[in-house]
Amino acid sequence: MRIYIKDLKNKIGEEVSISGWVNGRRDHGKLIFIDLRDMSGVVQTVVLPNHKDAHKEANLIRPEWVVEIKGKVNARPDKMITEDENGNIELEVFGIKIISEAKELPFEKDTELNLDTYLDYLPLTLRTKEKQAVFKVQACVVQAFRDFLISEDFTEIQAPKIIGADAEGGAGVFEVDYFGNESYLATSPQFYKQIMVGVFEKVFATGNVYRAEKHSTSRHINEYTSLDFEMGFIKDHTDIMEMENKFFQFLTKALKEKCQKEFELLEVEIPEVPENIPSMKLKKAQEILKKEYGEDCVGELDLEPQHERWLCEYSQKEFNSDFIFITHYPVEKRPMYTYEDENDKGFTKSFDLLFRGAEITTGGQRIHDYDELVKAIEKKGLDPEKFSFYLQAFRYGLPTHGGIGMGLERLTAKLLNIKNIKEATLFPREINRIDTLLNK
Amino acid sequence: MRIYIKDLKNKIGEEVSISGWVNGRRDHGKLIFIDLRDMSGVVQTVVLPNHKDAHKEANLIRPEWVVEIKGKVNARPDKMITEDENGNIELEVFGIKIISEAKELPFEKDTELNLDTYLDYLPLTLRTKEKQAVFKVQACVVQAFRDFLISEDFTEIQAPKIIGADAEGGAGVFEVDYFGNESYLATSPQFYKQIMVGVFEKVFATGNVYRAEKHSTSRHINEYTSLDFEMGFIKDHTDIMEMENKFFQFLTKALKEKCQKEFELLEVEIPEVPENIPSMKLKKAQEILKKEYGEDCVGELDLEPQHERWLCEYSQKEFNSDFIFITHYPVEKRPMYTYEDENDKGFTKSFDLLFRGAEITTGGQRIHDYDELVKAIEKKGLDPEKFSFYLQAFRYGLPTHGGIGMGLERLTAKLLNIKNIKEATLFPREINRIDTLLNK
Repeated sequence: MRIYIKDLKNKIGEEVSISGWVNGRRDHGKLIFIDLRDMSGVVQTVVLPNHKDAHKEANLIRPEWVVEIKGKVNARPDKMITEDENGNIELEVFGIKIISEAKELPFEKDTELNLDTYLDYLPLTLRTKEKQAVFKVQACVVQAFRDFLISEDFTEIQAPKIIGADAEGGAGVFEVDYFGNESYLATSPQFYKQIMVGVFEKVFATGNVYRAEKHSTSRHINEYTSLDFEMGFIKDHTDIMEMENKFFQFLTKALKEKCQKEFELLEVEIPEVPENIPSMKLKKAQEILKKEYGEDCVGELDLEPQHERWLCEYSQKEFNSDFIFITHYPVEKRPMYTYEDENDKGFTKSFDLLFRGAEITTGGQRIHDYDELVKAIEKKGLDPEKFSFYLQAFRYGLPTHGGIGMGLERLTAKLLNIKNIKEATLFPREINRIDTLLNK
Repeated sequence: MRIYIKDLKNKIGEEVSISGWVNGRRDHGKLIFIDLRDMSGVVQTVVLPNHKDAHKEANLIRPEWVVEIKGKVNARPDKMITEDENGNIELEVFGIKIISEAKELPFEKDTELNLDTYLDYLPLTLRTKEKQAVFKVQACVVQAFRDFLISEDFTEIQAPKIIGADAEGGAGVFEVDYFGNESYLATSPQFYKQIMVGVFEKVFATGNVYRAEKHSTSRHINEYTSLDFEMGFIKDHTDIMEMENKFFQFLTKALKEKCQKEFELLEVEIPEVPENIPSMKLKKAQEILKKEYGEDCVGELDLEPQHERWLCEYSQKEFNSDFIFITHYPVEKRPMYTYEDENDKGFTKSFDLLFRGAEITTGGQRIHDYDELVKAIEKKGLDPEKFSFYLQAFRYGLPTHGGIGMGLERLTAKLLNIKNIKEATLFPREINRIDTLLNK
């Protein structure tokens, strides 16, 4: 009966069977040390020469071979104890069974790799404690998002990704040949979320979305997982901000319960989420940038990355918050469905959430009136006829509503202080790469 | 403060505020009855002429208008009580506030629609108790899949859908123009699941997959949500079948806890899942088909839909089970990564799970040895070079492993006895339709 390596520390003196990958092997002639890794951890095993068969196998095996090892769990003598998770135990090997061999590795496992080599060899390079930790946290984030929204009476929806018209108005989309018809990959589940407010009032989706952006930056990838929710019968965008605020409180609680070990390993703090995340209008934020940082961007339509970094610094300093909402982006900068503030014409009831120097969410109230929306579509120079399916939701009555969209990979990167989003994405798609480098 | 309609029955005699859609309106001159629908249910409200302002509004409003209604919850006189969920209460309306108007509906809401009209008007036609129930159940299924696997120490992964080579060998895939490069939409997350067994041992994914199948049947759609898991260190395919068996027990328990109301509304039984789902080899199944149903298909490579229906009937009769595993499909019929049974050459350690007349899962053990897999790829007439990224997982050591893939929409259809899978898919993509009918 196989046991996990993490449970060995409770089995001192017992005979056990473990299975996993050879993480490292040190041959001291008579003694051969094998570090074995499974999904739960790493442990040192030692093969003594008196276990002849095991010693023969231990001579053969190499890093990343998959083996089953039987042996006895011993406490290590005091002076040998290391700071590793299983530093105070060692497995004395009685028998080794080889499950799978591996070819010679292209580089030593603890070599510092450049990003391209890391990406070229993902099936191998993802096999480290650090990468396991990153993607464990990511899995926890997406499930926390769902758990929270289910607890708030939201219903999950499966939004299609092959679409006939683009939610954001047509820029930067991938084309799909759909049985000879023009079609695109969705840049967000926006339309379907809104349609489904008409059915369930409160809905969420977690699925892949696509941006055919040609630039390669440390914060963009071409396919990512989008966390989206949308809810009806709201007073205004502040109801959405409140819901998101509550989500982040839920998330950090979940991370503390389930991923403490991963954050410690990666040497990152789980953020504190204020009861009320500070919020200010874009106009106000631009005034602060001018006054505090000497940056004259007053009247610009959006924030630059550097502005976002400064505003996060400011929020940290002034409000003791890693998070800050910036609201009221101009109508011309937001998608056609964005709700214009009656009391601040030209500006929208929309927001971005900034966190540790970057925008991680876009959200807001949407237009719910059919005639208003048709007008807004026309104002953007688009043809309402193309949106006839989507427009049905409004034609046949939709309440006030709004929601958010958030990239799972960017959020993971920010939570874990990972500089390049590609390292917070399992198999990143970028302009020159789909797994392997593209020829063209 | 808005309350949900489902909670009204606990508020008899109280003044409340509810919001929702006008589900129906009956004008009796002095009395106007409005059925109001929200995410939680439907209730009858009555507007008396003495509430003049409300009466004026009630004269204006039409089906699917979105309104806020204030009033008092009254118990209905005994003889008026209906069998509806809120049949014993009625809201006496004091005030109505219109949130959104709706244009005239294209048909009466309770009209029996043909499938095409239903699909043409999804933003409207999804707004029924029955459709709410179907997609509530679907949301519950996908979350139960995740909850179960997390409880079994699986880690969720985000598998990319834009791929350079196809898991199943190239047939029936959609092409994507990826910055001028050839690329495809994934037919399954198979390769990435297997790669990730090397990282986490046990992984799952719930995401969209694509099949460019040109036929339009009642059991195929071109984009669907695939529920996938993959696990390492297995003895053989029976470990996978056991895990799936346990999932279905978990699922039906979750459905009984969370979706009893929906199953009752749809008049369907939640299935019972045996402790051990019966299992037989394909060869044996074909013999039974011959003996019991006079169908001579012995030696054929796969089962026909009618065969699957008969085998489910047989399983029900002989084993009192809605479920039956069929194992050992021929090597030539299964993908290149399928594990051949050493003791039954020519046949694989793979299986289908049949449920209520149809195959709902394909699964099995996979080849884990690099050299074996390269040989198997070549045997299928494919070029291993094309699979070099995927093959790294094997090159650098992978344990015995296997898993399953299962279509969420087909499972939903079978659970709810829905004849056509398009009615168990929110926004089905089919050869002639992306939301609206295609021109070509």
